[in-house]
Amino acid sequence: MKHVLLQLERKGTMNLSDQIYSWMRSEITCGNFSCNEKLPSKRKLAASLQCSLNTVQAAYDQLADEGYLISREKSGYFVAEMDGVVDLGERFQDIPKHIPLQQRFDYDFSYQGVDRERFPFARWRKVMREGINGDDTDLLGVGNPKGQVGLRSSIARYLRYSRGVVCLPEQIVVSSGTESLLQLIMQLFEASTVYGIENPGYEKLSLLFRSNRARYTPLPLDEQGLLPESLEQSPVDVICITPSHQFPTGCIMPIGRRIQLLNWAYGNTGRFIIEDDYDSEFRYSGNPIPSLQGLDRQGTVVYLGSFSKSLSPALRISYMVLPEKLVGIFDEKLNFHVCPVPTFEQKALQEFMDSGQFERHLNRMRNTYGRKRETLVSAIRDMLPGSEIDGVAAGLHIVLHVYNGMDETELVSSAEKNRVKVYGMSRYYSDLSKQETTNTVLLGYSTMGIDDIGKAVSLLRDSWFPTT
Amino acid sequence: MKHVLLQLERKGTMNLSDQIYSWMRSEITCGNFSCNEKLPSKRKLAASLQCSLNTVQAAYDQLADEGYLISREKSGYFVAEMDGVVDLGERFQDIPKHIPLQQRFDYDFSYQGVDRERFPFARWRKVMREGINGDDTDLLGVGNPKGQVGLRSSIARYLRYSRGVVCLPEQIVVSSGTESLLQLIMQLFEASTVYGIENPGYEKLSLLFRSNRARYTPLPLDEQGLLPESLEQSPVDVICITPSHQFPTGCIMPIGRRIQLLNWAYGNTGRFIIEDDYDSEFRYSGNPIPSLQGLDRQGTVVYLGSFSKSLSPALRISYMVLPEKLVGIFDEKLNFHVCPVPTFEQKALQEFMDSGQFERHLNRMRNTYGRKRETLVSAIRDMLPGSEIDGVAAGLHIVLHVYNGMDETELVSSAEKNRVKVYGMSRYYSDLSKQETTNTVLLGYSTMGIDDIGKAVSLLRDSWFPTT
Repeated sequence: MKHVLLQLERKGTMNLSDQIYSWMRSEITCGNFSCNEKLPSKRKLAASLQCSLNTVQAAYDQLADEGYLISREKSGYFVAEMDGVVDLGERFQDIPKHIPLQQRFDYDFSYQGVDRERFPFARWRKVMREGINGDDTDLLGVGNPKGQVGLRSSIARYLRYSRGVVCLPEQIVVSSGTESLLQLIMQLFEASTVYGIENPGYEKLSLLFRSNRARYTPLPLDEQGLLPESLEQSPVDVICITPSHQFPTGCIMPIGRRIQLLNWAYGNTGRFIIEDDYDSEFRYSGNPIPSLQGLDRQGTVVYLGSFSKSLSPALRISYMVLPEKLVGIFDEKLNFHVCPVPTFEQKALQEFMDSGQFERHLNRMRNTYGRKRETLVSAIRDMLPGSEIDGVAAGLHIVLHVYNGMDETELVSSAEKNRVKVYGMSRYYSDLSKQETTNTVLLGYSTMGIDDIGKAVSLLRDSWFPTT
Repeated sequence: MKHVLLQLERKGTMNLSDQIYSWMRSEITCGNFSCNEKLPSKRKLAASLQCSLNTVQAAYDQLADEGYLISREKSGYFVAEMDGVVDLGERFQDIPKHIPLQQRFDYDFSYQGVDRERFPFARWRKVMREGINGDDTDLLGVGNPKGQVGLRSSIARYLRYSRGVVCLPEQIVVSSGTESLLQLIMQLFEASTVYGIENPGYEKLSLLFRSNRARYTPLPLDEQGLLPESLEQSPVDVICITPSHQFPTGCIMPIGRRIQLLNWAYGNTGRFIIEDDYDSEFRYSGNPIPSLQGLDRQGTVVYLGSFSKSLSPALRISYMVLPEKLVGIFDEKLNFHVCPVPTFEQKALQEFMDSGQFERHLNRMRNTYGRKRETLVSAIRDMLPGSEIDGVAAGLHIVLHVYNGMDETELVSSAEKNRVKVYGMSRYYSDLSKQETTNTVLLGYSTMGIDDIGKAVSLLRDSWFPTT
């Protein structure tokens, strides 16, 4: 038997078996024991290390289970054959503590996110607590690929009365955001499908299609939304639009344009319209504009909705309403799919909706955002002379044209110097040649406190209309 | 003015404006008012309907906002131009109540899901309650694309001590399941990448690759796992393997084979190994087998882990550990990605891990599943003479070979007659020519109650070894 250089630490944190295991594994991997070499018998090793036979046995078993040793009946343990091992030594680094980044802005006119003061924490805690219920052990399974039936029924009812969407629960697919919904949609349609996206539009769409190797093409808008003429000579099969409140221009698509686009879709069996109704809950005068889906009579509209604006993006709950013909394809092709939303959360949201709390929360938020919007608009009128505001009737952001001689880059960077973040309009265009957008910025007002709005706009005045 | 056929319902549930709006919308869409026709003035209509001017104004505003009307200064309201409208009438169906399906089986040897009696409901409620905390308004944002930094640090520490995985938090991406992780991975690798999958293997992988139009090829196994020889002449760039507990055969890949596969990956810069460590927490004797990732010295292993087996699939939390070179690609290409796991849940899981509750839960579950496994194995030895059991050392299912003259189809269907569900092995093969599997079934024991196991096996005996 080779000389055993191991000294067992009887007061260490590692038990004796693990010490023998570690030592022998490193002897093997650094080549001190070579392939097919016979190892010391358990008895001899135990005697040499002054430990029990069981201690050695446990170490040898582990090494055998992991494939370092081969046990041959009646002849003992041998080193297993393996390719040249370079270095299996320890190489852990310390896991560093996370240091949060310093905030670069005092005021951020972000168009993403919700009012952070008014999330119904207590009510959400309550519905979650009720949702995490040991009596309902069904909630521990993976559940239905489209989401819990109960939640889908609640969404169907909500969509009917509030958005004029016509659907049954089996048409609804619950998922965790636009990204996961579009990934499902791309699997439903053919690989050759060409998607038409709004230009300017939600910048994530083009990133998402590109990253998933789908074909897409930007399509121009006028003040009513997507131009139907642009579809005539284009290879587009599926258009993605935001008719309730176009992102980013904020325009609302009138009924005439909606019908034109539906007629385009009716013109060929492979054509579909993806209606992203992302912030349709927030319209500040009159009733909400009914959905395009509700006008469709031939099952060509895929309706996308989300709780990101109406509750919080942190919940990661969105949904789509598929037309009948795509429901069949979904059920056949995507039966392996698992709904990514935790079942506890689905149940909590269902309770939140069924108990009327969701509607009350929406009304409260419409009120809150309406007041913020008014505050912002009147601060702009007071402090930013000659500026024009667009897209103000709905949603959670406005479009601001500034006439002070600065182009968009200067507008953004001079605001940044005063630690205010505004968003240049050109980033939403797929090409940067759009000269008409160069003095235009987006101001979102959902996350900013109502008392901060005046201060933030006065900093914009200092940035854009310095008196010196 | 045309004769107005509308009678306002003053005691109805719909307010007067909405009644005027609905009536006029249907007059327009059914063609009673035609394109460019002038509509009754607000004053005249109000007089005719005996309501206030404001009531009519609100209805006209809504119709104008939706694009049915055009308001021309000093000349009044006109019907907007629009394409032929087919039928915009109501077409709602009742949303039916959901009727749950009758369970087809009394006993289901499912290999998915967890023990439904032992989920730590009270503790999970507590960490969720603490997570939904109004003081931490950061939790209302979309958060980091890879998941919350705090949770990723906790996962990194857990992986280090329990799985021998070497990583820093920035290498970890939190997501909602194998499906979403693989969809990210497919975006990281080139479109031309060929994925090699185990045959037999986890059936969802091939469905997922096919549905996402990725190229993949099944690769044969021996009793040590994936055969390295099969890679030599194949175009495979990335292999997907389950070395800790191969699904479905249950074999544990020995160190020699692991090194062979690493050496294959080291042979070309575009090669990677996806290590799916799906149920590695459950090994019943000795220590867990350290991960393949921990052996890798050249950054070629993508490690996939999940809380589906260790906590519950209903939580939808999984993660991957990317090698450095893929972290760079992720940060560059997928910066638009939003982590699909709700932030409240990420925070709850972090607290569950950091407080030591996760480790205690794992120990309890290892104990519970160990007892179920023993009960199952001894029931089989007692009641199913001559049967052979494989893959019993780890995981949450076993492989059973039955020698009673029945083929797999007969084994499954005769059990089904006694309302017991077992899973035929052939479904995990990509081709059905594998004759050696025809008398083999999979029995999972995670979801079945320990007291039911004996009864279920006795029903298998009645099905497979009838005494009559």
